Amino acid sequence: MNRRCFVKSGLGLTSLLALGSVPFVAGPQAQAAAPVRKALPFRMGCAGYTFVKYNLETALQMMKRLDIRYMSLKDFHLPINADDAKIAEVLALFKKYEVTPYAVGPIYMNTEAEVKNAFAYAKRVGVDMIVGIPKYELLPLVDELVKEYNFKVAIHIHGPDTPLFPDATDVWKHVEKLDSRIGICYDIAHTVRTGANLLEDYKKYSSRIYDMHIRDVSQATKSGHCIEAGRGIIDFRPFFAAIAKNNYTGVCSVEYEKDMTDVLPGLAETTGYFNAILKYL
Amino acid sequence: MNRRCFVKSGLGLTSLLALGSVPFVAGPQAQAAAPVRKALPFRMGCAGYTFVKYNLETALQMMKRLDIRYMSLKDFHLPINADDAKIAEVLALFKKYEVTPYAVGPIYMNTEAEVKNAFAYAKRVGVDMIVGIPKYELLPLVDELVKEYNFKVAIHIHGPDTPLFPDATDVWKHVEKLDSRIGICYDIAHTVRTGANLLEDYKKYSSRIYDMHIRDVSQATKSGHCIEAGRGIIDFRPFFAAIAKNNYTGVCSVEYEKDMTDVLPGLAETTGYFNAILKYL
Repeated sequence: MNRRCFVKSGLGLTSLLALGSVPFVAGPQAQAAAPVRKALPFRMGCAGYTFVKYNLETALQMMKRLDIRYMSLKDFHLPINADDAKIAEVLALFKKYEVTPYAVGPIYMNTEAEVKNAFAYAKRVGVDMIVGIPKYELLPLVDELVKEYNFKVAIHIHGPDTPLFPDATDVWKHVEKLDSRIGICYDIAHTVRTGANLLEDYKKYSSRIYDMHIRDVSQATKSGHCIEAGRGIIDFRPFFAAIAKNNYTGVCSVEYEKDMTDVLPGLAETTGYFNAILKYL
Repeated sequence: MNRRCFVKSGLGLTSLLALGSVPFVAGPQAQAAAPVRKALPFRMGCAGYTFVKYNLETALQMMKRLDIRYMSLKDFHLPINADDAKIAEVLALFKKYEVTPYAVGPIYMNTEAEVKNAFAYAKRVGVDMIVGIPKYELLPLVDELVKEYNFKVAIHIHGPDTPLFPDATDVWKHVEKLDSRIGICYDIAHTVRTGANLLEDYKKYSSRIYDMHIRDVSQATKSGHCIEAGRGIIDFRPFFAAIAKNNYTGVCSVEYEKDMTDVLPGLAETTGYFNAILKYL
Protein backbone atom coordinates (compact mmCIF):
# COMPACT_ATOMS: atom_id res chain seq x y z
CA MET A 1 0.00 0.00 0.00
CA ASN A 2 1.10 3.51 -0.73
CA ARG A 3 1.33 5.21 2.60
CA ARG A 4 3.47 8.13 1.59
CA CYS A 5 0.66 10.63 1.56
CA PHE A 6 -1.62 11.14 4.45
CA VAL A 7 -3.63 14.02 5.69
CA LYS A 8 -2.44 16.48 8.23
CA SER A 9 -4.90 15.80 10.95
CA GLY A 10 -4.82 15.71 14.68
CA LEU A 11 -4.10 11.98 14.39
CA GLY A 12 -0.52 10.83 14.10
CA LEU A 13 0.61 8.32 11.49
CA THR A 14 0.49 5.51 14.01
CA SER A 15 -3.13 6.24 14.81
CA LEU A 16 -3.98 6.40 11.14
CA LEU A 17 -2.32 3.07 10.48
CA ALA A 18 -4.10 1.61 13.47
CA LEU A 19 -7.39 2.86 12.06
CA GLY A 20 -6.45 1.29 8.75
CA SER A 21 -7.54 4.41 6.98
CA VAL A 22 -4.47 6.13 5.60
CA PRO A 23 -5.82 7.88 2.55
CA PHE A 24 -4.09 7.91 -0.79
CA VAL A 25 -3.54 10.25 -3.65
CA ALA A 26 -3.43 9.01 -7.20
CA GLY A 27 -0.40 9.51 -9.40
CA PRO A 28 2.97 11.12 -8.81
CA GLN A 29 1.86 14.62 -9.78
CA ALA A 30 -0.91 14.66 -7.22
CA GLN A 31 1.39 14.75 -4.24
CA ALA A 32 1.03 18.47 -3.81
CA ALA A 33 -2.74 18.17 -3.79
CA ALA A 34 -4.97 17.15 -0.91
CA PRO A 35 -5.60 13.44 -0.44
CA VAL A 36 -8.75 12.16 -2.09
CA ARG A 37 -10.32 11.29 1.23
CA LYS A 38 -9.54 12.55 4.68
CA ALA A 39 -8.87 10.23 7.58
CA LEU A 40 -12.06 8.69 8.88
CA PRO A 41 -12.50 5.60 11.02
CA PHE A 42 -13.87 3.65 8.05
CA ARG A 43 -12.50 2.98 4.58
CA MET A 44 -14.08 2.98 1.13
CA GLY A 45 -14.10 -0.22 -0.88
CA CYS A 46 -15.85 -2.08 -3.65
CA ALA A 47 -17.88 -5.23 -3.43
CA GLY A 48 -16.41 -7.61 -6.01
CA TYR A 49 -19.91 -8.12 -7.41
CA THR A 50 -19.73 -4.64 -8.95
CA PHE A 51 -17.31 -6.16 -11.45
CA VAL A 52 -19.18 -9.37 -12.26
CA LYS A 53 -18.87 -8.59 -15.97
CA TYR A 54 -15.13 -7.90 -15.85
CA ASN A 55 -11.99 -9.87 -15.23
CA LEU A 56 -10.17 -9.09 -11.99
CA GLU A 57 -7.37 -7.07 -13.54
CA THR A 58 -9.78 -4.72 -15.31
CA ALA A 59 -11.74 -4.38 -12.07
CA LEU A 60 -8.60 -3.49 -10.13
CA GLN A 61 -7.58 -0.97 -12.79
CA MET A 62 -10.94 0.76 -12.39
CA MET A 63 -10.61 0.77 -8.61
CA LYS A 64 -7.11 2.22 -8.78
CA ARG A 65 -8.33 4.92 -11.13
CA LEU A 66 -10.99 5.84 -8.56
CA ASP A 67 -8.52 5.49 -5.70
CA ILE A 68 -10.57 2.79 -3.98
CA ARG A 69 -8.23 0.43 -2.17
CA TYR A 70 -10.31 -2.33 -0.58
CA MET A 71 -12.29 -5.09 -2.23
CA SER A 72 -14.34 -8.00 -1.00
CA LEU A 73 -13.31 -10.79 -3.34
CA LYS A 74 -15.97 -12.75 -5.22
CA ASP A 75 -15.58 -16.37 -6.31
CA PHE A 76 -15.89 -15.47 -10.00
CA HIS A 77 -12.57 -13.62 -9.59
CA LEU A 78 -10.99 -16.39 -7.51
CA PRO A 79 -12.77 -19.77 -7.37
CA ILE A 80 -13.28 -21.26 -3.93
CA ASN A 81 -11.37 -24.36 -4.97
CA ALA A 82 -8.43 -22.38 -6.39
CA ASP A 83 -5.02 -23.89 -5.68
CA ASP A 84 -2.20 -22.02 -3.96
CA ALA A 85 -0.58 -20.99 -7.23
CA LYS A 86 -3.80 -19.37 -8.45
CA ILE A 87 -4.29 -17.63 -5.11
CA ALA A 88 -0.73 -16.29 -5.23
CA GLU A 89 -1.30 -15.02 -8.77
CA VAL A 90 -4.48 -13.21 -7.73
CA LEU A 91 -2.89 -11.70 -4.63
CA ALA A 92 0.01 -10.44 -6.78
CA LEU A 93 -2.52 -8.72 -9.02
CA PHE A 94 -4.10 -7.02 -6.00
CA LYS A 95 -0.65 -5.86 -4.91
CA LYS A 96 0.14 -4.53 -8.39
CA TYR A 97 -2.92 -2.26 -8.28
CA GLU A 98 -2.50 -1.38 -4.58
CA VAL A 99 -5.84 -2.87 -3.61
CA THR A 100 -6.30 -4.98 -0.49
CA PRO A 101 -8.75 -7.89 -0.47
CA TYR A 102 -10.26 -7.35 2.98
CA ALA A 103 -12.86 -10.13 2.87
CA VAL A 104 -14.21 -12.87 0.64
CA GLY A 105 -17.78 -13.07 -0.47
CA PRO A 106 -20.67 -12.85 -0.44
CA ILE A 107 -20.57 -16.65 -0.36
CA TYR A 108 -23.79 -18.65 -0.28
CA MET A 109 -23.46 -21.68 2.04
CA ASN A 110 -26.11 -24.32 1.54
CA THR A 111 -24.32 -27.35 2.97
CA GLU A 112 -21.89 -28.15 5.78
CA ALA A 113 -19.18 -28.69 3.20
CA GLU A 114 -19.78 -25.23 1.75
CA VAL A 115 -19.42 -23.65 5.18
CA LYS A 116 -16.15 -25.51 5.80
CA ASN A 117 -14.88 -24.68 2.32
CA ALA A 118 -15.64 -21.00 2.82
CA PHE A 119 -13.53 -20.82 5.99
CA ALA A 120 -10.66 -22.78 4.41
CA TYR A 121 -10.82 -20.48 1.38
CA ALA A 122 -10.73 -17.31 3.48
CA LYS A 123 -7.73 -18.68 5.37
CA ARG A 124 -5.86 -19.53 2.17
CA VAL A 125 -6.61 -16.07 0.73
CA GLY A 126 -5.35 -14.54 3.98
CA VAL A 127 -8.41 -12.60 5.12
CA ASP A 128 -10.20 -12.89 8.43
CA MET A 129 -13.72 -12.04 7.32
CA ILE A 130 -16.27 -13.89 5.24
CA VAL A 131 -19.29 -12.11 3.87
CA GLY A 132 -21.71 -14.98 3.78
CA ILE A 133 -25.24 -16.20 3.46
CA PRO A 134 -25.40 -19.52 5.37
CA LYS A 135 -28.72 -21.34 5.51
CA TYR A 136 -30.28 -20.76 8.93
CA GLU A 137 -29.72 -24.38 9.99
CA LEU A 138 -25.99 -24.06 9.30
CA LEU A 139 -25.51 -21.27 11.83
CA PRO A 140 -24.39 -23.65 14.62
CA LEU A 141 -21.57 -24.85 12.37
CA VAL A 142 -20.67 -21.24 11.51
CA ASP A 143 -20.62 -20.57 15.25
CA GLU A 144 -18.11 -23.40 15.75
CA LEU A 145 -15.89 -22.29 12.91
CA VAL A 146 -15.67 -18.59 13.83
CA LYS A 147 -14.27 -19.81 17.16
CA GLU A 148 -11.88 -22.26 15.52
CA TYR A 149 -10.57 -19.77 12.92
CA ASN A 150 -11.11 -16.55 14.88
CA PHE A 151 -12.70 -15.07 11.76
CA LYS A 152 -15.70 -12.81 11.45
CA VAL A 153 -18.71 -13.75 9.37
CA ALA A 154 -20.73 -10.79 8.15
CA ILE A 155 -24.09 -12.09 7.00
CA HIS A 156 -25.26 -10.29 3.90
CA ILE A 157 -28.81 -8.97 3.91
CA HIS A 158 -30.67 -9.04 0.66
CA GLY A 159 -33.88 -7.09 1.10
CA PRO A 160 -37.32 -8.19 -0.02
CA ASP A 161 -35.97 -10.40 -2.84
CA THR A 162 -35.24 -13.37 -0.61
CA PRO A 163 -36.69 -14.93 2.55
CA LEU A 164 -33.15 -15.72 3.82
CA PHE A 165 -31.81 -12.78 5.84
CA PRO A 166 -33.89 -9.98 4.27
CA ASP A 167 -32.73 -7.36 6.76
CA ALA A 168 -30.54 -6.66 9.77
CA THR A 169 -33.39 -7.46 12.16
CA ASP A 170 -33.59 -10.95 10.77
CA VAL A 171 -29.83 -11.51 11.06
CA TRP A 172 -29.81 -10.15 14.61
CA LYS A 173 -32.67 -12.43 15.63
CA HIS A 174 -30.76 -15.47 14.38
CA VAL A 175 -27.28 -14.61 15.63
CA GLU A 176 -27.62 -12.57 18.81
CA LYS A 177 -27.11 -15.61 21.01
CA LEU A 178 -24.23 -16.91 18.88
CA ASP A 179 -20.59 -15.92 18.99
CA SER A 180 -20.22 -12.15 18.59
CA ARG A 181 -17.92 -12.73 15.61
CA ILE A 182 -21.04 -13.56 13.62
CA GLY A 183 -22.58 -10.29 12.52
CA ILE A 184 -24.01 -8.32 9.64
CA CYS A 185 -22.95 -7.05 6.23
CA TYR A 186 -25.23 -4.03 6.27
CA ASP A 187 -26.49 -3.52 2.73
CA ILE A 188 -28.03 -0.09 2.87
CA ALA A 189 -29.89 -0.28 -0.44
CA HIS A 190 -31.57 -3.58 0.44
CA THR A 191 -32.34 -2.19 3.91
CA VAL A 192 -34.16 0.75 2.38
CA ARG A 193 -35.92 -1.54 -0.11
CA THR A 194 -37.48 -3.47 2.79
CA GLY A 195 -38.95 -0.23 4.11
CA ALA A 196 -36.69 -0.28 7.17
CA ASN A 197 -35.18 2.96 8.47
CA LEU A 198 -31.53 3.10 7.51
CA LEU A 199 -30.27 5.04 10.51
CA GLU A 200 -32.47 3.32 13.07
CA ASP A 201 -31.43 -0.16 11.96
CA TYR A 202 -27.82 0.97 11.89
CA LYS A 203 -28.01 2.28 15.44
CA LYS A 204 -29.86 -0.79 16.68
CA TYR A 205 -27.45 -3.32 15.24
CA SER A 206 -24.17 -1.44 14.90
CA SER A 207 -22.40 -3.60 17.50
CA ARG A 208 -22.59 -6.50 15.07
CA ILE A 209 -22.14 -4.64 11.77
CA TYR A 210 -18.77 -5.73 10.36
CA ASP A 211 -19.12 -4.83 6.71
CA MET A 212 -21.34 -2.60 4.57
CA HIS A 213 -22.53 -2.52 0.99
CA ILE A 214 -23.44 0.96 -0.09
CA ARG A 215 -25.16 2.39 -3.12
CA ASP A 216 -28.15 4.58 -3.89
CA VAL A 217 -31.56 3.20 -4.79
CA SER A 218 -34.38 4.70 -6.81
CA GLN A 219 -37.26 3.81 -4.48
CA ALA A 220 -37.84 2.49 -0.96
CA THR A 221 -39.72 -0.53 -2.28
CA LYS A 222 -38.96 -3.95 -3.75
CA SER A 223 -38.90 -2.39 -7.21
CA GLY A 224 -36.24 0.13 -6.19
CA HIS A 225 -33.14 -0.34 -8.34
CA CYS A 226 -29.52 0.76 -8.11
CA ILE A 227 -28.81 4.27 -9.34
CA GLU A 228 -25.88 6.68 -9.27
CA ALA A 229 -25.40 8.05 -5.74
CA GLY A 230 -27.24 11.31 -5.33
CA ARG A 231 -29.88 10.45 -7.92
CA GLY A 232 -31.81 8.15 -5.61
CA ILE A 233 -33.54 8.47 -2.28
CA ILE A 234 -30.78 7.72 0.23
CA ASP A 235 -29.66 10.71 2.28
CA PHE A 236 -25.96 9.86 2.49
CA ARG A 237 -24.58 12.69 4.60
CA PRO A 238 -26.39 11.78 7.82
CA PHE A 239 -25.64 8.13 7.16
CA PHE A 240 -21.88 8.68 6.81
CA ALA A 241 -21.96 11.11 9.75
CA ALA A 242 -23.64 8.48 11.92
CA ILE A 243 -21.17 5.73 11.12
CA ALA A 244 -18.19 8.06 11.55
CA LYS A 245 -19.53 9.28 14.89
CA ASN A 246 -20.08 5.69 15.96
CA ASN A 247 -16.49 4.92 14.98
CA TYR A 248 -17.32 2.26 12.39
CA THR A 249 -13.89 0.88 11.49
CA GLY A 250 -14.91 -1.46 8.68
CA VAL A 251 -15.21 -0.88 4.97
CA CYS A 252 -18.01 0.84 3.07
CA SER A 253 -18.01 -1.20 -0.10
CA VAL A 254 -19.74 0.25 -3.10
CA GLU A 255 -21.83 -2.45 -4.73
CA TYR A 256 -22.84 -0.75 -7.94
CA GLU A 257 -25.37 -2.67 -9.97
CA LYS A 258 -26.36 -0.42 -12.86
CA ASP A 259 -24.93 -0.56 -16.39
CA MET A 260 -22.88 -3.55 -15.29
CA THR A 261 -21.14 -4.01 -18.64
CA ASP A 262 -20.13 -0.33 -18.61
CA VAL A 263 -19.84 0.22 -14.90
CA LEU A 264 -17.07 2.78 -14.62
CA PRO A 265 -18.94 6.04 -15.33
CA GLY A 266 -21.68 5.34 -12.76
CA LEU A 267 -19.19 4.01 -10.26
CA ALA A 268 -17.07 7.13 -10.80
CA GLU A 269 -20.06 9.46 -10.33
CA THR A 270 -20.97 7.54 -7.19
CA THR A 271 -17.42 7.70 -5.88
CA GLY A 272 -17.17 11.43 -6.55
CA TYR A 273 -20.45 11.93 -4.72
CA PHE A 274 -19.19 10.05 -1.69
CA ASN A 275 -15.81 11.82 -1.83
CA ALA A 276 -17.51 15.20 -1.49
CA ILE A 277 -19.69 14.09 1.40
CA LEU A 278 -16.71 12.59 3.23
CA LYS A 279 -14.59 15.68 2.56
CA TYR A 280 -17.15 17.98 4.17
CA LEU A 281 -18.37 15.56 6.84
CA MET B 1 -36.12 20.55 -22.50
CA ASN B 2 -37.63 18.13 -20.07
CA ARG B 3 -39.33 20.26 -17.46
CA ARG B 4 -41.61 17.64 -15.98
CA CYS B 5 -39.54 17.11 -12.89
CA PHE B 6 -38.58 19.90 -10.62
CA VAL B 7 -37.88 20.10 -6.96
CA LYS B 8 -40.38 21.06 -4.38
CA SER B 9 -38.84 24.25 -3.15
CA GLY B 10 -40.11 27.56 -1.95
CA LEU B 11 -39.85 28.74 -5.53
CA GLY B 12 -42.77 28.23 -7.88
CA LEU B 13 -42.35 26.78 -11.36
CA THR B 14 -42.43 30.22 -12.92
CA SER B 15 -39.59 31.41 -10.76
CA LEU B 16 -37.61 28.30 -11.58
CA LEU B 17 -38.16 28.80 -15.30
CA ALA B 18 -37.22 32.43 -14.94
CA LEU B 19 -34.03 31.38 -13.21
CA GLY B 20 -33.45 28.89 -16.00
CA SER B 21 -32.57 26.26 -13.45
CA VAL B 22 -35.25 23.64 -13.54
CA PRO B 23 -33.37 20.47 -12.66
CA PHE B 24 -33.82 17.17 -14.41
CA VAL B 25 -33.91 13.53 -13.60
CA ALA B 26 -32.53 10.94 -15.98
CA GLY B 27 -34.63 8.14 -17.38
CA PRO B 28 -38.24 7.17 -16.89
CA GLN B 29 -37.56 5.00 -13.85
CA ALA B 30 -35.94 7.85 -11.98
CA GLN B 31 -39.15 9.83 -11.61
CA ALA B 32 -39.80 8.53 -8.13
CA ALA B 33 -36.32 9.51 -7.01
CA ALA B 34 -35.12 12.96 -6.08
CA PRO B 35 -33.85 15.16 -8.90
CA VAL B 36 -30.11 15.02 -9.44
CA ARG B 37 -29.63 18.63 -8.47
CA LYS B 38 -31.84 20.88 -6.42
CA ALA B 39 -32.92 24.28 -7.63
CA LEU B 40 -30.13 26.81 -7.38
CA PRO B 41 -29.79 30.14 -9.15
CA PHE B 42 -27.06 28.73 -11.41
CA ARG B 43 -26.95 25.70 -13.72
CA MET B 44 -24.31 23.07 -14.37
CA GLY B 45 -22.88 22.75 -17.85
CA CYS B 46 -19.90 21.57 -19.84
CA ALA B 47 -17.43 23.60 -21.80
CA GLY B 48 -17.33 22.09 -25.27
CA TYR B 49 -13.54 21.88 -24.99
CA THR B 50 -13.94 18.96 -22.57
CA PHE B 51 -14.94 16.94 -25.64
CA VAL B 52 -12.25 18.08 -28.05
CA LYS B 53 -11.40 14.43 -28.81
CA TYR B 54 -15.01 13.39 -29.47
CA ASN B 55 -17.63 14.12 -32.05
CA LEU B 56 -20.58 16.18 -30.88
CA GLU B 57 -23.05 13.31 -30.65
CA THR B 58 -20.77 11.27 -28.38
CA ALA B 59 -20.19 14.37 -26.26
CA LEU B 60 -23.92 14.96 -25.90
CA GLN B 61 -24.51 11.30 -25.00
CA MET B 62 -21.97 11.63 -22.19
CA MET B 63 -23.61 14.82 -20.96
CA LYS B 64 -27.04 13.25 -21.00
CA ARG B 65 -25.72 10.29 -19.05
CA LEU B 66 -24.40 12.71 -16.42
CA ASP B 67 -27.57 14.80 -16.56
CA ILE B 68 -25.69 17.96 -17.58
CA ARG B 69 -27.92 20.03 -19.81
CA TYR B 70 -25.95 23.11 -20.92
CA MET B 71 -22.96 23.34 -23.21
CA SER B 72 -20.86 26.15 -24.58
CA LEU B 73 -20.35 25.13 -28.17
CA LYS B 74 -16.84 24.95 -29.62
CA ASP B 75 -16.01 25.53 -33.26
CA PHE B 76 -14.65 22.00 -33.70
CA HIS B 77 -18.22 20.79 -33.11
CA LEU B 78 -19.76 23.50 -35.31
CA PRO B 79 -17.43 25.49 -37.58
CA ILE B 80 -17.83 29.26 -37.47
CA ASN B 81 -18.52 29.32 -41.20
CA ALA B 82 -21.14 26.56 -41.01
CA ASP B 83 -24.14 27.06 -43.27
CA ASP B 84 -27.72 27.12 -42.03
CA ALA B 85 -28.30 23.44 -42.86
CA LYS B 86 -25.31 22.38 -40.77
CA ILE B 87 -26.42 24.62 -37.90
CA ALA B 88 -29.93 23.14 -38.02
CA GLU B 89 -28.44 19.63 -37.98
CA VAL B 90 -26.32 20.43 -34.92
CA LEU B 91 -29.19 22.08 -33.08
CA ALA B 92 -31.37 19.02 -33.75
CA LEU B 93 -28.67 16.89 -32.18
CA PHE B 94 -28.68 19.09 -29.08
CA LYS B 95 -32.44 18.76 -28.90
CA LYS B 96 -32.26 14.97 -29.25
CA TYR B 97 -30.04 14.74 -26.17
CA GLU B 98 -31.90 17.48 -24.24
CA VAL B 99 -28.85 19.71 -24.02
CA THR B 100 -29.04 23.47 -24.59
CA PRO B 101 -26.17 25.30 -26.24
CA TYR B 102 -26.11 28.39 -24.03
CA ALA B 103 -23.08 30.12 -25.55
CA VAL B 104 -20.47 29.71 -28.26
CA GLY B 105 -16.77 29.63 -27.57
CA PRO B 106 -14.19 30.19 -26.36
CA ILE B 107 -13.47 31.93 -29.65
CA TYR B 108 -10.12 33.61 -30.24
CA MET B 109 -10.54 36.88 -32.14
CA ASN B 110 -7.37 38.21 -33.68
CA THR B 111 -8.82 40.40 -36.43
CA GLU B 112 -11.83 42.67 -36.97
CA ALA B 113 -13.27 40.05 -39.30
CA GLU B 114 -12.99 37.39 -36.62
CA VAL B 115 -14.88 39.59 -34.16
CA LYS B 116 -17.64 40.22 -36.69
CA ASN B 117 -17.79 36.54 -37.65
CA ALA B 118 -18.09 35.52 -34.01
CA PHE B 119 -21.14 37.73 -33.49
CA ALA B 120 -22.77 36.60 -36.74
CA TYR B 121 -22.10 32.96 -35.77
CA ALA B 122 -23.62 33.37 -32.31
CA LYS B 123 -26.70 34.94 -33.86
CA ARG B 124 -27.11 32.13 -36.41
CA VAL B 125 -26.70 29.52 -33.64
CA GLY B 126 -29.31 31.37 -31.60
CA VAL B 127 -27.36 32.18 -28.46
CA ASP B 128 -26.81 35.57 -26.91
CA MET B 129 -23.43 35.02 -25.34
CA ILE B 130 -19.96 34.60 -26.79
CA VAL B 131 -17.14 33.31 -24.66
CA GLY B 132 -14.26 35.02 -26.33
CA ILE B 133 -10.66 36.08 -26.27
CA PRO B 134 -10.41 39.24 -28.41
CA LYS B 135 -7.05 40.90 -28.78
CA TYR B 136 -6.94 43.96 -26.51
CA GLU B 137 -7.00 46.38 -29.47
CA LEU B 138 -10.23 44.82 -30.75
CA LEU B 139 -12.18 45.65 -27.59
CA PRO B 140 -13.64 48.89 -29.06
CA LEU B 141 -15.16 46.84 -31.88
CA VAL B 142 -16.48 44.30 -29.39
CA ASP B 143 -17.98 47.23 -27.48
CA GLU B 144 -19.81 48.37 -30.63
CA LEU B 145 -21.08 44.91 -31.47
CA VAL B 146 -22.45 44.02 -28.01
CA LYS B 147 -24.61 47.13 -28.38
CA GLU B 148 -25.65 46.27 -31.92
CA TYR B 149 -26.50 42.62 -31.15
CA ASN B 150 -27.43 43.02 -27.47
CA PHE B 151 -25.20 40.02 -26.74
CA LYS B 152 -22.88 39.40 -23.84
CA VAL B 153 -19.21 38.67 -24.33
CA ALA B 154 -17.62 36.75 -21.48
CA ILE B 155 -13.86 37.07 -21.85
CA HIS B 156 -12.12 33.85 -20.97
CA ILE B 157 -9.19 34.08 -18.58
CA HIS B 158 -6.33 31.69 -19.16
CA GLY B 159 -4.01 31.92 -16.19
CA PRO B 160 -0.23 32.20 -16.31
CA ASP B 161 0.01 30.44 -19.70
CA THR B 162 -0.78 33.50 -21.76
CA PRO B 163 -0.20 37.27 -21.50
CA LEU B 164 -3.69 37.95 -22.97
CA PHE B 165 -6.27 38.11 -20.15
CA PRO B 166 -4.48 35.95 -17.57
CA ASP B 167 -6.97 36.70 -14.79
CA ALA B 168 -10.17 38.50 -13.90
CA THR B 169 -8.25 41.58 -12.73
CA ASP B 170 -6.78 41.97 -16.21
CA VAL B 171 -10.18 41.63 -17.90
CA TRP B 172 -11.73 44.09 -15.47
CA LYS B 173 -8.98 46.65 -16.07
CA HIS B 174 -9.59 46.47 -19.82
CA VAL B 175 -13.39 46.41 -19.86
CA GLU B 176 -14.65 48.31 -16.82
CA LYS B 177 -15.20 51.47 -18.88
CA LEU B 178 -16.78 49.58 -21.76
CA ASP B 179 -20.37 48.42 -22.13
CA SER B 180 -21.39 46.31 -19.15
CA ARG B 181 -22.34 43.47 -21.50
CA ILE B 182 -18.60 42.81 -21.86
CA GLY B 183 -17.56 40.74 -18.87
CA ILE B 184 -15.71 37.69 -17.68
CA CYS B 185 -15.76 33.92 -18.13
CA TYR B 186 -14.36 33.15 -14.72
CA ASP B 187 -12.12 30.11 -15.11
CA ILE B 188 -11.54 29.06 -11.54
CA ALA B 189 -8.65 26.68 -12.21
CA HIS B 190 -6.69 29.28 -14.18
CA THR B 191 -7.50 31.85 -11.48
CA VAL B 192 -5.98 29.62 -8.83
CA ARG B 193 -2.98 28.86 -11.08
CA THR B 194 -2.15 32.59 -11.19
CA GLY B 195 -1.99 32.63 -7.38
CA ALA B 196 -5.11 34.80 -7.13
CA ASN B 197 -7.66 34.15 -4.39
CA LEU B 198 -10.69 32.43 -5.89
CA LEU B 199 -13.32 33.90 -3.59
CA GLU B 200 -11.81 37.37 -3.41
CA ASP B 201 -11.59 37.72 -7.18
CA TYR B 202 -15.10 36.36 -7.48
CA LYS B 203 -16.47 38.91 -5.02
CA LYS B 204 -14.51 41.76 -6.60
CA TYR B 205 -15.65 41.09 -10.15
CA SER B 206 -18.95 39.21 -9.80
CA SER B 207 -20.97 42.03 -11.35
CA ARG B 208 -19.28 41.26 -14.66
CA ILE B 209 -18.98 37.48 -14.38
CA TYR B 210 -21.31 36.00 -17.01
CA ASP B 211 -19.91 32.50 -17.40
CA MET B 212 -17.65 30.16 -15.45
CA HIS B 213 -15.34 27.28 -16.23
CA ILE B 214 -14.91 25.02 -13.28
CA ARG B 215 -12.62 22.11 -12.52
CA ASP B 216 -10.13 21.15 -9.85
CA VAL B 217 -6.40 21.73 -10.17
CA SER B 218 -3.47 19.93 -8.58
CA GLN B 219 -1.46 22.98 -7.53
CA ALA B 220 -1.85 26.76 -7.20
CA THR B 221 0.99 27.36 -9.65
CA LYS B 222 1.57 27.46 -13.40
CA SER B 223 2.37 23.74 -13.31
CA GLY B 224 -0.98 22.93 -11.68
CA HIS B 225 -2.94 20.59 -13.95
CA CYS B 226 -6.56 19.49 -14.17
CA ILE B 227 -7.57 16.70 -11.82
CA GLU B 228 -10.80 15.03 -10.74
CA ALA B 229 -12.77 17.39 -8.46
CA GLY B 230 -11.95 16.70 -4.84
CA ARG B 231 -8.46 15.42 -5.57
CA GLY B 232 -7.00 18.87 -6.07
CA ILE B 233 -6.65 22.02 -4.02
CA ILE B 234 -9.87 23.89 -4.74
CA ASP B 235 -12.27 24.11 -1.83
CA PHE B 236 -15.52 23.84 -3.78
CA ARG B 237 -18.16 24.11 -1.06
CA PRO B 238 -17.41 27.71 -0.06
CA PHE B 239 -17.05 28.58 -3.73
CA PHE B 240 -20.47 27.20 -4.69
CA ALA B 241 -21.97 28.69 -1.51
CA ALA B 242 -20.60 32.12 -2.44
CA ILE B 243 -21.97 32.09 -5.99
CA ALA B 244 -25.35 30.76 -4.83
CA LYS B 245 -25.55 33.42 -2.13
CA ASN B 246 -24.62 36.07 -4.67
CA ASN B 247 -27.39 34.75 -6.95
CA TYR B 248 -25.14 33.87 -9.88
CA THR B 249 -27.63 32.96 -12.60
CA GLY B 250 -25.18 31.79 -15.26
CA VAL B 251 -23.75 28.38 -15.97
CA CYS B 252 -20.92 26.58 -14.17
CA SER B 253 -19.37 24.74 -17.06
CA VAL B 254 -17.08 21.87 -16.26
CA GLU B 255 -13.99 22.12 -18.45
CA TYR B 256 -12.35 18.81 -17.74
CA GLU B 257 -8.91 18.46 -19.28
CA LYS B 258 -7.50 15.18 -18.00
CA ASP B 259 -7.55 11.86 -19.89
CA MET B 260 -9.13 13.68 -22.79
CA THR B 261 -9.45 10.59 -24.98
CA ASP B 262 -11.20 8.76 -22.12
CA VAL B 263 -12.88 11.68 -20.46
CA LEU B 264 -16.08 10.16 -19.10
CA PRO B 265 -14.86 8.52 -15.85
CA GLY B 266 -13.08 11.66 -14.62
CA LEU B 267 -15.94 13.87 -15.74
CA ALA B 268 -18.38 11.55 -13.96
CA GLU B 269 -16.35 11.57 -10.74
CA THR B 270 -16.17 15.38 -10.97
CA THR B 271 -19.91 15.64 -11.61
CA GLY B 272 -20.73 13.34 -8.69
CA TYR B 273 -18.49 15.43 -6.47
CA PHE B 274 -20.29 18.63 -7.47
CA ASN B 275 -23.70 16.95 -7.16
CA ALA B 276 -23.03 16.13 -3.50
CA ILE B 277 -21.80 19.62 -2.69
CA LEU B 278 -24.81 21.20 -4.37
CA LYS B 279 -27.20 18.78 -2.66
CA TYR B 280 -25.95 19.72 0.79
CA LEU B 281 -25.24 23.41 0.07
